[in-house]
Amino acid sequence: MLSSKNKVIIYAQDSFSEKSAKTGIGFIRYGICETVAVVDRKLAGKTTFDVINGLPKVPIFESVESAKKSKPDADILLIGIAPSGGKLPPEWIPDIKTAINLKLNIVNGLHDFLENISEIKELATRQKVFIWDVRKYKGELIVANTKLLDWPVQIVLTVGTDAAVGKMTVSLELTKAARKNNFQAEFVATGQTGMIISGDGIPVDAIVGDFMAGAIEQELLKVAKKKYDFIFVEGQGSILHPGWSGVTLALYHGSLPHKLILCHRADNKYLKNTKVKIESLNQFIKVYESVSLPLRRAKVVGIGLNTYGLTSNQANDAIKKAEDETGLPADDVVRNGGKKLFESCLG
Amino acid sequence: MLSSKNKVIIYAQDSFSEKSAKTGIGFIRYGICETVAVVDRKLAGKTTFDVINGLPKVPIFESVESAKKSKPDADILLIGIAPSGGKLPPEWIPDIKTAINLKLNIVNGLHDFLENISEIKELATRQKVFIWDVRKYKGELIVANTKLLDWPVQIVLTVGTDAAVGKMTVSLELTKAARKNNFQAEFVATGQTGMIISGDGIPVDAIVGDFMAGAIEQELLKVAKKKYDFIFVEGQGSILHPGWSGVTLALYHGSLPHKLILCHRADNKYLKNTKVKIESLNQFIKVYESVSLPLRRAKVVGIGLNTYGLTSNQANDAIKKAEDETGLPADDVVRNGGKKLFESCLG
Repeated sequence: MLSSKNKVIIYAQDSFSEKSAKTGIGFIRYGICETVAVVDRKLAGKTTFDVINGLPKVPIFESVESAKKSKPDADILLIGIAPSGGKLPPEWIPDIKTAINLKLNIVNGLHDFLENISEIKELATRQKVFIWDVRKYKGELIVANTKLLDWPVQIVLTVGTDAAVGKMTVSLELTKAARKNNFQAEFVATGQTGMIISGDGIPVDAIVGDFMAGAIEQELLKVAKKKYDFIFVEGQGSILHPGWSGVTLALYHGSLPHKLILCHRADNKYLKNTKVKIESLNQFIKVYESVSLPLRRAKVVGIGLNTYGLTSNQANDAIKKAEDETGLPADDVVRNGGKKLFESCLG
Repeated sequence: MLSSKNKVIIYAQDSFSEKSAKTGIGFIRYGICETVAVVDRKLAGKTTFDVINGLPKVPIFESVESAKKSKPDADILLIGIAPSGGKLPPEWIPDIKTAINLKLNIVNGLHDFLENISEIKELATRQKVFIWDVRKYKGELIVANTKLLDWPVQIVLTVGTDAAVGKMTVSLELTKAARKNNFQAEFVATGQTGMIISGDGIPVDAIVGDFMAGAIEQELLKVAKKKYDFIFVEGQGSILHPGWSGVTLALYHGSLPHKLILCHRADNKYLKNTKVKIESLNQFIKVYESVSLPLRRAKVVGIGLNTYGLTSNQANDAIKKAEDETGLPADDVVRNGGKKLFESCLG
C-alpha cells in the first residue's frame, strides 16, 4: 500500500517518545518512503533529531492542519504509536477525519480497525483516499506443518527478552549486512511496524490463535521459493511474557529457524507492564533453545543489545558484559550496524 | 446455550470414529444433557456402544430426518467433529438446513461460523431456532497480566504431548475426584468441546493472538473470585506442535498454573499431522517446566495416560512404564477415574 514516492506525516499526538512511538520512529529510520512531518503538540517547533538519538531532522507540528499546510505534498497520515492492546485513543478520531478531509490516506497499525468505524470509512470513500488497516489479516487460515524443511535457505529469527527491545531493527540491519556481503537476503515483517516499513508481511499477533504459525509458514514459503540465502524474520514479544508469549511461540515454530539472535534492552529489569523479572540472558537462551522443535534445533548465535540512553562508554561496557555472560558475540546494531551479528549467523 | 433438559442429536456424517468425532464422543460421555441419537450413515443401525469403548447405547441413524423421526423430542443438532483447521465440510450444509427446517437448534464448534452463512442465518431466524457458534469469542480483548497471583486458589492445567490425547477428559475427571473429596472445584473449558459440555468457557484457539492469554486470565479470575479450592483448566494442543504451540503457551501463561498434569496417548509416536517425533515423556516435562513464568514455577505432578485401544493388561503395563520413566504417578482416568491423579495434585 506504500511506495517509495509517498510522503508521510506521522501522527503521534502527545506521544512522540522513544517509549510509545515505536512505529513512527521505526518508520523514520527504515521506512520505504520519506517522512516529511510529525504531529505532536507537546514537541511542536522541535525536530525528531532533537527528541530521539540518531534520527534525521523531521519537523514536528502541533496539528495535522499545520503539518499538511507546511508540507503540501504529504499524502499519507501514519498512526505512529503501538500501545499494548493496540487500542485507538477515541480522541484521535476528529484528527483522523481532518486528515481525510485534507486528502491524506491513512495507515493504521492498531488492533482497532478504522474501516470498522462507519463514519471514517464513508468519509474516506467520499474523499477518495485509502485506509490501510495493517493488522487486518486477509490471507488464508491454515494450520502450520513444517513445510519449510524442504527448502535449503537459512532462516534467522530474532527473539527477545521482552517486547519493544529492537527485534525488528536487528532483523533489518542483519538483512542490510547480508546484502553488503553479497548474499541474497530478505527481511520478513511479522508486525505492523515492520509491515509498514517494508510494505509486506504478516500481522501475526492479530491472527486467530490456531492459524498464526500457518500464516508465517505460508509467508516464508513464498520467500523461500525465490531461493534466497538468508531469510531474516522479525520476532515478536517474549517467550516469558504472560501477555504475548503465545504469539512468540507460534512465530518461532511457524518459521522453523536455524538460528536465533536474542535481543535485549540493556536497562530493562522487568517485562513490559508486568512484575516478571528478567533473570539473565542465559535464562532466555536456555528457554528459547529448549522449545525449539526436535526436527530443527535452533541455537542462539548472538545477542542484539539495545543500549538506548547509555553513553558510548556505557554501551561498550554493556556489550562486553553481555558477551562475557553468554559467551556469544553481542552488539548494538543502531550504533554499530549489523556486521558483527551477521557474521555470527554464518557459522 | 444448553441446559440439562435439551435432547441432542450428534451429527457426524461418515465421521463417527474415535479419531475424528472428538466433540461428539466427549459430549456423549460428559455433556450436561442427554444425547438421544447420532447421525452417520456408515454406522446406521449400530449404537455408539458398538463403535466406541465405554460409551452408552445411543442409536446411530443414516440421516438427520430418520434420527429426528425416531427421536421427536430432540431439539439440538450438535456438529460432532473437530478437524484440524476447523473447516465445515460444505457438503454438510444441506443437512444443516434440513435440521433447521425440522426445528432443531444448531450447536457448532468449528472455526467456520454458521452465522456467517447468510442462507443458514436467515433460515434459522425464520424457523425460530438458535445457532450457537461456540468458537465465536464475544468477550473483552485485553492483554494478560498475572492478576491471578492475588488469589489463593490452586490452579491445575492439563498439558499434552499432542492435541486430542485426553486433556479435557483428565480435567473433568480431576474435577469430579476433587468434589468427591469434598473440595470446592471447578472445571474451566478452553475449547469448543469443553464449552459445549460445560456450557461455559473460552475458545482460546479462536481468539486473536495478542488476546488469548488475557481471555483465559479473565475467565479464571471470575472463577477464582468465587473462592474455589481448585480450578482445573482444560489444556490445548502441545508445546512442541508446530501448528498450535502458540495457543498452548498462551493458555499456560494466561492461567498461571501451580501444577501440570501431562497427558499422553500411549500409542502415539508422532505429533498429529506432522513428522515431529514424540521423543519421551521426560522431554515434555522438561520443556513444559522450563517455559513456566519465574513468578510461579509450575511442576508436572502426574501423567494422564490415554490407553485407548489397548487391552486391560497392556494398559496396566503402559501405566507402569510411564511411572517408571518419569517417577510420577500415572493413570488412565477413563478406565480408573481421577482419584490417583487428583491425589498427586494435593502434595
